[in-house]
Amino acid sequence: MKPEDILKFSLADFTYNDSEAVLSPPGDFDTWIQDPRVGLAMSFFEQPLHKSPRPRTELSGGHLGERRPVINLTSYNYLGLSTHPEVVQAAAQALMHYGVGASGAAMLSGTFDQHVKLSEELAAFKGQDACMLFSSGYGGNLGAIQGLMQKGDVLVIDSKCHRSVVDGATLSGAKMVSFAHNDAASLDETLSRYQGKRRLVVVEGVYSMDGDTADLPALLDVCDAHDVPLYLDEAHSSLVYGESGRGLGEHFGVEDRIGVHFGTLSKAFGGVGGFVCGEESIIRYLKCYAASFQFSCALPPAIVAAMRKSLEVATRDNTLREKLWANVRHFRSNLGAMGLDLGESTSQVIPIIVGSSGQQLIELAMAAQERGLYLQPIDFPAVESHSRRFRISVSAQLTAEDIDEASNIIEDVIAKPLGLVGAA
Amino acid sequence: MKPEDILKFSLADFTYNDSEAVLSPPGDFDTWIQDPRVGLAMSFFEQPLHKSPRPRTELSGGHLGERRPVINLTSYNYLGLSTHPEVVQAAAQALMHYGVGASGAAMLSGTFDQHVKLSEELAAFKGQDACMLFSSGYGGNLGAIQGLMQKGDVLVIDSKCHRSVVDGATLSGAKMVSFAHNDAASLDETLSRYQGKRRLVVVEGVYSMDGDTADLPALLDVCDAHDVPLYLDEAHSSLVYGESGRGLGEHFGVEDRIGVHFGTLSKAFGGVGGFVCGEESIIRYLKCYAASFQFSCALPPAIVAAMRKSLEVATRDNTLREKLWANVRHFRSNLGAMGLDLGESTSQVIPIIVGSSGQQLIELAMAAQERGLYLQPIDFPAVESHSRRFRISVSAQLTAEDIDEASNIIEDVIAKPLGLVGAA
Repeated sequence: MKPEDILKFSLADFTYNDSEAVLSPPGDFDTWIQDPRVGLAMSFFEQPLHKSPRPRTELSGGHLGERRPVINLTSYNYLGLSTHPEVVQAAAQALMHYGVGASGAAMLSGTFDQHVKLSEELAAFKGQDACMLFSSGYGGNLGAIQGLMQKGDVLVIDSKCHRSVVDGATLSGAKMVSFAHNDAASLDETLSRYQGKRRLVVVEGVYSMDGDTADLPALLDVCDAHDVPLYLDEAHSSLVYGESGRGLGEHFGVEDRIGVHFGTLSKAFGGVGGFVCGEESIIRYLKCYAASFQFSCALPPAIVAAMRKSLEVATRDNTLREKLWANVRHFRSNLGAMGLDLGESTSQVIPIIVGSSGQQLIELAMAAQERGLYLQPIDFPAVESHSRRFRISVSAQLTAEDIDEASNIIEDVIAKPLGLVGAA
Repeated sequence: MKPEDILKFSLADFTYNDSEAVLSPPGDFDTWIQDPRVGLAMSFFEQPLHKSPRPRTELSGGHLGERRPVINLTSYNYLGLSTHPEVVQAAAQALMHYGVGASGAAMLSGTFDQHVKLSEELAAFKGQDACMLFSSGYGGNLGAIQGLMQKGDVLVIDSKCHRSVVDGATLSGAKMVSFAHNDAASLDETLSRYQGKRRLVVVEGVYSMDGDTADLPALLDVCDAHDVPLYLDEAHSSLVYGESGRGLGEHFGVEDRIGVHFGTLSKAFGGVGGFVCGEESIIRYLKCYAASFQFSCALPPAIVAAMRKSLEVATRDNTLREKLWANVRHFRSNLGAMGLDLGESTSQVIPIIVGSSGQQLIELAMAAQERGLYLQPIDFPAVESHSRRFRISVSAQLTAEDIDEASNIIEDVIAKPLGLVGAA
């Protein structure tokens, strides 16, 4: 690899490993990733936080290296529950009672009374018969899809669905086909092509890279017309959407038309894990056949106790949700006034799309960090090469002053360099 | 399904779902699993613990239902670290500082200083360049195998390897072949059949259902002769085997011949998660291509802080390991004197193999619980149908009195009914 070719490559070019040795990366990968220009871009990955994932925290790494205070717009702590005093207290109390680990898989010895109660409470919250917990969100989609589908079936997914759904389909042996993002006509055409097969449609409530939401009423009309159930991944919409926080299904008033309700505990819930709610018979079946459930250690009881408190805090009133949505409106208004490209986002996930230059993306990320703003760049191949971006996760914990200060920095270090408002 | 046929079926018969509706279990599954006799067997799954996973704890569920004190022989808390005061204290302190969840994937915003330090400490502990953390043990094997292997490669696994390894192979697209359990000649023959391919051999330190250990010196000789690297899963052997607790590789003095060192944080470490240690270049590569790493929320910082303390406590001296091995000798001696079939176990995992009758297994499990002993039955298809068993996880926290009391109960409710010592 010649030095002048380095920047022509991306992570997309090293997926296939051409090295003969199975424990060596592909030829040129080390040369590429250790080039100072690539290394600079990579330095924005795994930047360690030194305090809690609040809007005001401390960060090290990146091109600046040393630990410094930042305004953090990257954490999925949408309602601030990860650091909510009652949630932290619930975890601390449970730690003293249960210790740290569950010390077993859920089926064998890893289930505690806390797991049973959280499952019951989540099922009641979602208005479903039953619920099962997974140790991770990735593992949840993976195991549920693998357990539901099999060779000969067809999994029909939105083209922007999460990798966990794709990997679940691979494990199941089912055929996987995607329809054009959020496009009911494309879904209709796809389902028509696979009549007579066992089919399941998967869409997400909020798409994590774009912040747009599923057009559930139109998509459900198509599903109903084909008599195919819908699996809704509410990873980023649980506790955020709907009058009671039940998610995008509640927002659209279509919950009773959804076949499987998936959610995670690592986003608005402020913890870690995944859950699947549905009819009792299918949950009972999945517990016996979803490998990631059967063969993973159960969630630590203290985390589960904290998630019970998160659910209680987020549903006893609308305070946190109202604060979040007020912050979303405020931030979106500030960013919109600068003329930034926010894509199709309508949610608390707001991308700032800066275009096709990876080098520019990194320069802007460096400038933001120099001004004390932690904005994570999202580069190709995580997003398409023409829409490299930053992604803001709005939190209810942001004050109006935080939002204005962050907006001012964004105006200076992103909007102006892009030739937008204020650049004159 | 006729009532007289119910007991001819097992979970192995419902893997294929013949229902037309993708969200319904296979025909007859509900009839089968809700039959009182099957329901009784199923009632031993997901029995909730009400206190910490110590030898003396409280259990509900099963056929007795109500909450009661038990001697617990099922939890993987081999060194008692899940409830070690220093470990619990480390978690509690970190909770106050960091909150509950990491609120992001490791690459994007979920890495904290604790994750960086634990990775460094685990790499140093294992004598390796680098280490990466996974949110679950299942996810760790899954992601590492998927990231290392690809279509055209051959993954050669011991026939008793964990499902996470098998699922990783499926995700990778590599061909997977197994060799006869722990049989170096079978490994040699298998590797000879796939010359010219990129190959990787996977074995486990301690096999979780049998408690036997990998014959590492013989297996490594075969790997070396074929110039194929070995991936060692030390899920159940980390902190347990070796003078310093580094695992079975240390025990046999062969660590420098092992290519990839895998471990979990949910067994002896007392927490949750997985880790992979190896050369820096391959860990750097895996971080970019292991899907379960890229697309999972990072471990909660408080869990990570606790695992740092577990590592410190378990390696600053040999107290806990020596206590564990003394308990293993004591328990094995008691069980051996009864003439019970302990299979090939030489480790802290001791099966009591009771034979081919599922009904008898459940009757024995009921009798054990009636006497206050929590012994989890392991039925077909989790183990072969002729070797249904109980599985004891010995813990350093057991006192000599606990072991003798548990042994007495086992003699009464298992050895005597099986016609062994004392039955006359």
